[in-house]
Amino acid sequence: MDLHRLDAIAIAASVNDGTSSAVAEAEKTLARLAAYDKVQPQIWISRIDPSDVLAAAIAVDEQIARGERLPLAGVAYAVKDNIDVLGFETTAGCPGFAYQPEESADVIAQLDAAGAIGVGKTNLDQFATGLVGTRSPYGIPCNAYNRAFVSGGSSSGSAIAVAAGLVPFALGTDTAGSGRVPAAFNHLIGFKPTKGRWSTRGLVPACRTLDCITAFTNTPEDAELVDQVIAGLDPRDPYSKLLNDRPIMPKRIGVPRRDQRVWFGDEQSEYLYDQALDHLATLVEVVEFDIELLLEAARLLYSGPWVAERTAALSELLASNPEAIDETVRAIVSEGETISAVDAFKGQYRLAALKRDADRLWEQFDAFAFPTTGTTYRVSELAAAPITLNSHLGYYTNFVNLLDMAAVAVPAGMRSNRTGFGVTLIGPADSDHGLLAMANDYLNVADRPGPPPLDMEGYMETVKLSVVGAHLKDMPLHWQLTSRDAKFVGAFETAPNYRLYAMETTPPKPALVHSEDGASIPVEVYELDLAAFGSFVAEVPAPLAIGTVILSDGSTVKGFVSEPRATIGAEDVTALGGWRNYIASKQT
Amino acid sequence: MDLHRLDAIAIAASVNDGTSSAVAEAEKTLARLAAYDKVQPQIWISRIDPSDVLAAAIAVDEQIARGERLPLAGVAYAVKDNIDVLGFETTAGCPGFAYQPEESADVIAQLDAAGAIGVGKTNLDQFATGLVGTRSPYGIPCNAYNRAFVSGGSSSGSAIAVAAGLVPFALGTDTAGSGRVPAAFNHLIGFKPTKGRWSTRGLVPACRTLDCITAFTNTPEDAELVDQVIAGLDPRDPYSKLLNDRPIMPKRIGVPRRDQRVWFGDEQSEYLYDQALDHLATLVEVVEFDIELLLEAARLLYSGPWVAERTAALSELLASNPEAIDETVRAIVSEGETISAVDAFKGQYRLAALKRDADRLWEQFDAFAFPTTGTTYRVSELAAAPITLNSHLGYYTNFVNLLDMAAVAVPAGMRSNRTGFGVTLIGPADSDHGLLAMANDYLNVADRPGPPPLDMEGYMETVKLSVVGAHLKDMPLHWQLTSRDAKFVGAFETAPNYRLYAMETTPPKPALVHSEDGASIPVEVYELDLAAFGSFVAEVPAPLAIGTVILSDGSTVKGFVSEPRATIGAEDVTALGGWRNYIASKQT
Repeated sequence: MDLHRLDAIAIAASVNDGTSSAVAEAEKTLARLAAYDKVQPQIWISRIDPSDVLAAAIAVDEQIARGERLPLAGVAYAVKDNIDVLGFETTAGCPGFAYQPEESADVIAQLDAAGAIGVGKTNLDQFATGLVGTRSPYGIPCNAYNRAFVSGGSSSGSAIAVAAGLVPFALGTDTAGSGRVPAAFNHLIGFKPTKGRWSTRGLVPACRTLDCITAFTNTPEDAELVDQVIAGLDPRDPYSKLLNDRPIMPKRIGVPRRDQRVWFGDEQSEYLYDQALDHLATLVEVVEFDIELLLEAARLLYSGPWVAERTAALSELLASNPEAIDETVRAIVSEGETISAVDAFKGQYRLAALKRDADRLWEQFDAFAFPTTGTTYRVSELAAAPITLNSHLGYYTNFVNLLDMAAVAVPAGMRSNRTGFGVTLIGPADSDHGLLAMANDYLNVADRPGPPPLDMEGYMETVKLSVVGAHLKDMPLHWQLTSRDAKFVGAFETAPNYRLYAMETTPPKPALVHSEDGASIPVEVYELDLAAFGSFVAEVPAPLAIGTVILSDGSTVKGFVSEPRATIGAEDVTALGGWRNYIASKQT
Repeated sequence: MDLHRLDAIAIAASVNDGTSSAVAEAEKTLARLAAYDKVQPQIWISRIDPSDVLAAAIAVDEQIARGERLPLAGVAYAVKDNIDVLGFETTAGCPGFAYQPEESADVIAQLDAAGAIGVGKTNLDQFATGLVGTRSPYGIPCNAYNRAFVSGGSSSGSAIAVAAGLVPFALGTDTAGSGRVPAAFNHLIGFKPTKGRWSTRGLVPACRTLDCITAFTNTPEDAELVDQVIAGLDPRDPYSKLLNDRPIMPKRIGVPRRDQRVWFGDEQSEYLYDQALDHLATLVEVVEFDIELLLEAARLLYSGPWVAERTAALSELLASNPEAIDETVRAIVSEGETISAVDAFKGQYRLAALKRDADRLWEQFDAFAFPTTGTTYRVSELAAAPITLNSHLGYYTNFVNLLDMAAVAVPAGMRSNRTGFGVTLIGPADSDHGLLAMANDYLNVADRPGPPPLDMEGYMETVKLSVVGAHLKDMPLHWQLTSRDAKFVGAFETAPNYRLYAMETTPPKPALVHSEDGASIPVEVYELDLAAFGSFVAEVPAPLAIGTVILSDGSTVKGFVSEPRATIGAEDVTALGGWRNYIASKQT
């Protein structure tokens, strides 16, 4: 089964023009769903019965046959299970909370009226409280590209449903980043509209004043299409607003000052971000600014009174059946019980002041381009530190809803572990169209390859290691690689910022030293599985070490570096152009 | 000293065109201030030194001499003492809270730049918590027209300063009605702009999310002039907004359904309100509507989480020196300590829902016209029930700021005790100009006489009593009035809704009975002081009683009415046109 990514615009066009039909599309969808059920059934909490999916498709085909055109004719979609769909329990990831809604959420009604066909309700971090995807009693949806890693959350299942090619779009939600983080990790577009642009009637609240319904898609154009169908005033939602599109012609975008960029040790993310900014710089002026005020706003969300909104949303369950709530989620939301109304109002005053300052940033910038997250984590790492690591993932996302901004998370490359890195374009309220257009322009300029293959069978985690001397092919210590089943990846050069020294060891060994005044040094890159890599590193003698080596394309790999003492008395052989040349020069 | 009302536009024009000067105006102002100091010095908390007032006036005259024109050239104004003025303590009515501000509030800076001349800081209900004026350790400012009655608050001193002709305008503030209630009681315009239209930087907060600075003036035009000077974005105030005037052409205005109008027993207010609506009906269509949702929003203010905003504003003082706070105010603001953040957010959700419903009212109505208050109270009454009676005064005002509406309180007649009755025109956010224009139109149509004389020497409280039979002049029981020093006010007729019966008593006595199928009956009205009136009522025999009689001009007075049994066996003599005619008919 080919689970390739899907395109809502193309499907709707083919159903509308008769080159396909909603039924034909539905049958393909059902086959895809069945195929991926063998991989990650836990991305779903409930699924629409196949016969109902087909019945809905037949109804769409009948409308088309009558001459109607429907903007989402026959387009399958998935729905995060904190959004009401009539006929299905809404669980919000908590069986003890589940209820039968009396009607579908406004967004669902709009999508269905536009010919879209819902196929199921997706797993999530319980009560949309989390950015990881691990906080659910319905199982842990994992990253579609490397299941050792978190999917990102809270809209975990929805993101994976799109990434895995099951549906062209899915609805998520976003209060603190839940519609953006899983987009980044799964190489997707994550569109978080301006608050109030999409009705939140029929959504289980997380923080009612901040909650947004969002879309995961493969392209900005598909997000635009979904927005056309959904956006608009819902008179029954007090937080819904009249549309008031604010055109932006991005000329100058703001990015965090370099010392405020936090990567939690993830140099690949840092590199990918710099690359993304280089791409953006071909389109717009990219200017660093002090993001402290955004960070201060972000801190209000979980370290301030807004936690009490989550408590408010769950106050009945906390009173009647607290055990029904996931332990980590309960620990977070219970905190809100200790907060006073006085502190809630004081927090709001502080936020108002920060928002006024933040709004003035739009006098300087048309948009921001932030990393979506600074890093990602293994599922096993989350289990060990469920709150701290989760909070790392919100560093660049938490402030957006509080400060009433719109955002589009955009894929911006992948780490060597295949997890996605993303950049989020952020703009003022009502800049939604402009942000989606900018996302398109960025993607055209970045011109990255598509997503990597899905992790269908359990992706083998490996590490890439660059060697520069005695471990090179045909060199004396190369056997340390071959004996560990290391796979040769290729011959590369480092970035032009290294010097190579020859130490007086036996056999002779090089010391690779990063230096602005350097050159590109030839290296070979091998791939080892984790255990083999570990045992290899264990045997590396001082003053050598395994660190990070930057390759000429800017990517980074693990590799031989050296302690400073390595160069004492050593010969600088940079000019020779690599260890092989040095050895050759000695032999002549 | 003639303390007539003043006109800011006229004064500024005369100073700008040289027919007067700022110094000449300042000298007159200083004389007026001195005169009224003999009456109610307690309307002030601090006063600008006369030499500084004159110095400011000289500076204005110099600007004029240089050819500048200043919109408020030489116009004196007073400032409620919860607004910062550089060089003066800001007390907010609490000596233990007082501080020296580091700069003037934004509104003060704007007024001063426009040539206005501040003369002093006025008394208020402490921390702007109250609608009465009685809650201040600096003394109780009383109604300018009857000092036995409350001035209204919390902007008590500012309202009186304008009413007493000391300044043409004064700044108040308004969170729950503080800029409207004292306007009503003192026959003034009270302009409460849309939230965020006038900067609140430099204002001691009451409820920061709701607070507005307001103006008391004698005319809507003067309020418009002050607005022109003050309105606009203050980038340093997070709650300040860009101006976004929303033109309204009032055609249809909403008024409370008759059964929802609460008068707390004050029939004069009810009558005056009906009269105001009759006047408005000559301009626009007047339509009753169900105001329950507005009342529900109003209840959130003191019975819900917004109390915690007041607590937040005073949290330091409550912790360090609670005794410094007025007992009643402390009782109110301490309540907020018991409210949780969860309840605060839940209240905000409820308000958001109510606001959405309230906003839809503007699809039906261009504005509302509500009583400003249902009644007024004596200072002595407030002392006995300081919280309950205060809350009565907020019935028609409390919802306005919560629901982000603009309002203009307009004089609409007076009670027989000379206190003012007011109608408040209420419109959606940004309808400020439209409301002021409508106020003007209303005043032109109502064409009421100006305010009554100021109460300079302690207004003698009297009661007007209508008599219809044996107490008429030259009738057998008239002595019961003369022996009590009753003053003859005049011969009037009742509204055309009465029937007159002759009972078989000795001497013959009439029974006046209200009836839709009735006629206007001649009466005489006498004025008695309270004690005399009381002893008179004590002597009235059954089945007669002293109740309320509606006169032909719609005003009401106390007067003879009767129990139902009075008409049993009695002769209906309505057709004879009054008791004198009946007596005459018997004698012929």
